Amino acid sequence: MSKATESYAALMAHERISQALVQVAGRLGWDQETVMPRGAADQRAEETGAMESVLHARRTDPGIGEWLADLETADLTNVQSANLRHISRSYTRANRVPADLAQRLATLTSRAQGQWADAREANDFAAFVPVLSEVVALKREEGAALADGGDVYDALLDDYEPGATGADLSAMFASLRPALVDLRARALEAAAPAPLTGTFDAGKQMKLARSIAKTFGYDFKRGRIDKAVHPFSSGGGADVRITTRTQEDDPLNCLYSTIHEVGHACYEQNIDAAYALTPLGQGVSMGVHESQSRIYENQLGRSRAFTEYLYGQMRDSFGDFGCASAEDFYRAVNRLNQGYIRTEADEVQYNLHVMLRFDLERALIAGTLAVADLEEAWNTRFEADFGYPVDQASNGCLQDVHWSVGLFGYFATYSLGNVYAGCLNEALCAAVPDLDAQLRGGDLGPATEWLAQNLQRHGGLMPPREVITQAAGAAPNEAPLLAYLEAKFSDIYHL
Amino acid sequence: MSKATESYAALMAHERISQALVQVAGRLGWDQETVMPRGAADQRAEETGAMESVLHARRTDPGIGEWLADLETADLTNVQSANLRHISRSYTRANRVPADLAQRLATLTSRAQGQWADAREANDFAAFVPVLSEVVALKREEGAALADGGDVYDALLDDYEPGATGADLSAMFASLRPALVDLRARALEAAAPAPLTGTFDAGKQMKLARSIAKTFGYDFKRGRIDKAVHPFSSGGGADVRITTRTQEDDPLNCLYSTIHEVGHACYEQNIDAAYALTPLGQGVSMGVHESQSRIYENQLGRSRAFTEYLYGQMRDSFGDFGCASAEDFYRAVNRLNQGYIRTEADEVQYNLHVMLRFDLERALIAGTLAVADLEEAWNTRFEADFGYPVDQASNGCLQDVHWSVGLFGYFATYSLGNVYAGCLNEALCAAVPDLDAQLRGGDLGPATEWLAQNLQRHGGLMPPREVITQAAGAAPNEAPLLAYLEAKFSDIYHL
Repeated sequence: MSKATESYAALMAHERISQALVQVAGRLGWDQETVMPRGAADQRAEETGAMESVLHARRTDPGIGEWLADLETADLTNVQSANLRHISRSYTRANRVPADLAQRLATLTSRAQGQWADAREANDFAAFVPVLSEVVALKREEGAALADGGDVYDALLDDYEPGATGADLSAMFASLRPALVDLRARALEAAAPAPLTGTFDAGKQMKLARSIAKTFGYDFKRGRIDKAVHPFSSGGGADVRITTRTQEDDPLNCLYSTIHEVGHACYEQNIDAAYALTPLGQGVSMGVHESQSRIYENQLGRSRAFTEYLYGQMRDSFGDFGCASAEDFYRAVNRLNQGYIRTEADEVQYNLHVMLRFDLERALIAGTLAVADLEEAWNTRFEADFGYPVDQASNGCLQDVHWSVGLFGYFATYSLGNVYAGCLNEALCAAVPDLDAQLRGGDLGPATEWLAQNLQRHGGLMPPREVITQAAGAAPNEAPLLAYLEAKFSDIYHL
Repeated sequence: MSKATESYAALMAHERISQALVQVAGRLGWDQETVMPRGAADQRAEETGAMESVLHARRTDPGIGEWLADLETADLTNVQSANLRHISRSYTRANRVPADLAQRLATLTSRAQGQWADAREANDFAAFVPVLSEVVALKREEGAALADGGDVYDALLDDYEPGATGADLSAMFASLRPALVDLRARALEAAAPAPLTGTFDAGKQMKLARSIAKTFGYDFKRGRIDKAVHPFSSGGGADVRITTRTQEDDPLNCLYSTIHEVGHACYEQNIDAAYALTPLGQGVSMGVHESQSRIYENQLGRSRAFTEYLYGQMRDSFGDFGCASAEDFYRAVNRLNQGYIRTEADEVQYNLHVMLRFDLERALIAGTLAVADLEEAWNTRFEADFGYPVDQASNGCLQDVHWSVGLFGYFATYSLGNVYAGCLNEALCAAVPDLDAQLRGGDLGPATEWLAQNLQRHGGLMPPREVITQAAGAAPNEAPLLAYLEAKFSDIYHL
């Protein structure tokens, strides 16, 4: 065996154990949100910290550097090169952040999250300013360490969307924002569709949600659905679990949260099994992940064709639920709300929420916006984009947990996911011409199979932009999403 | 800070992370038995293996040896000495087993467990002989490495009951066995109490089991009860979970499995919180652990006084369930069965099952019994002790999973636990004179508080025999258990 072959084998053996440990840590997170006894929180924090310290030690193991050096001039397959790309990136980034800084960040964000929760409950942004200022300062320090002379915000963004830059996203959003502000304003001037009313048994919601999950291709032999406060998907390979929630007055929350998480989960479940427990065995970025959850939820799940099928399923589950036709149901499902909360926003307004956060957090990290001025900046921007003022801080700049726990660079991936979903949807519609007829019959097979074959199975083989470009047949851009939204909501709102 | 103080702090910091990882690994085991998707088994094996490899590396870390050396002449508190005793023992044992041997054992036992399941299903001991021979050979090799010149079987036993020896146990069992064979024979000649009959709703069984768990002091804020194929208790500190099972024709299985596991769980929950995530923060041995599960289940749970309370609870849950009086219920709960299976055995016969296994496995490890001759030896001994022949291998030497997974030295701790429970019960009855009146009223408080204060809270502070001696007021011996069983079953069976 050559030196390079030996080094590659050693590196991948090391990585395989690390990947297995990442799965264990993920399962611990699932446990915490679903079944953990409430008195176990402090102990769990130590358990999670112990896993983190083990993983950090493995990621920065000097052996990785030596193996990578042995492989610098080696002749490698595509898969081998992709593995090295991921491992090398992780090794470089993990070594750039001093252990002491990582430790301070962990301690600070744990404290900041508690103070954020208190401030949100008290509707008191001023109370959150000191600790958020500390978080921003430390994230800037981390970003500078990661950037190694490059752009600090881009270095943070790279954690979630490798290769993306603030400048590229900014250009994309500059085209997206005015179009969406305009569409939003026109839609909200028109007559609004009637929302669903009534009470929907929680058990029946869960039963229908499970059935719809199966319809979208979720494999229950390698996963499970539980209830949790926040819907999420976790795990990889042969154990990908999702959670959802029920509100008796809003069955759409349960159903579309489930479809969204099924999109994330199917991405993980459909990755080539040969990549399991290697760096290629997981979704390649947050943006690409979100493209799958969004296309399942929106372009497929909220389509006129699929909602016609879902309308029948709803009637089978709940009887006459006060919605006279499939068309009324379609309009109810896609109704725009005049709200404040990102997570409750519809397809049109969601990206406005995201772009607002993206611009503000970029300014915070650049130091051109002081944390003390964040609330005013938020409220001014919100009124400009949404047309009405924020009523209270908990509906404004205190609504999201992200910044308190140091997630700077994360928000943008939500909209990037929507943009990717727009591109993929365009290609999907071209590739599967009788898609609507299938969706109307509740047959998601050809659509999800197209996504599995063209995107999901590749896992981490290609960089994010490349896998989207290759599946969509063109470089990612916002035009397909805009065209889709304009057409869909012009129709629904008779604009 | 002195060198010794520094070394102690470093050692305990290292140990704390290891203990947290042990908790994580335990949670993974819980997950596997309760909620894991069935398609995840292979991946889970790798995850478990990854945790094991991390823990093994931490246990054999040369830094431990250096810290221990620094502390050899240090002036230490009781707690510090006890911590060092555990860490030193674990370090020595972990380093004695070559990594290659540990790896071969893991691979072999994983294969052997599958072959055991197949052989049991086929009732074919011969098919199990080759792989069991390999297991015995490898366990002998492991035992020799651990023994470092001492007794091989004792070295294996020490994994589960530190300080116990085959010779000591053999002497104790030599007194226990004839008395139990005799009691068993007399009881089975007498008129048998009527068993429960009828159907008992599984949901109601679980509801009652939860209520009884609370009665015995199980803290649901730091635990939870789920259903699983095999009842077990897992975890420590603030997260101690148990499982139970339901059979619609036998509510006693659910109730007494629950009380048994509650005994294990309360031991863990009642350990001094100051010992959490240190070597003292867990039950000190399998025998002491079993003493708690057994005294909760048997001396308390199957007492005439408590079954009078439980009879009322049963009637509240199931209405008239065909048992005319509390006395009939007491006799049904304590009925001896002519069976083959250890896990279904009553208080009298259980230890006969264990002693049979203890003698045979000692002979296997000593090499005085060949694996090929195991079935015949089992069947001969069974008929001698139980009075009737084994009908098939799955009811005989193929019934337990233990040997297939390399658990040699484990069985004895079940009976040792019963012996310890006998000693503790004698002391408890003396310390709490109105115990029966309390149990009749469903008040387990004083009894469980006595156990918590005198035994459970100490965790790993004292060695097994010492903690029992200190709580019971005398060195552990089989006389109290024998006296208790003789009195109880002479009464029930009118002997």
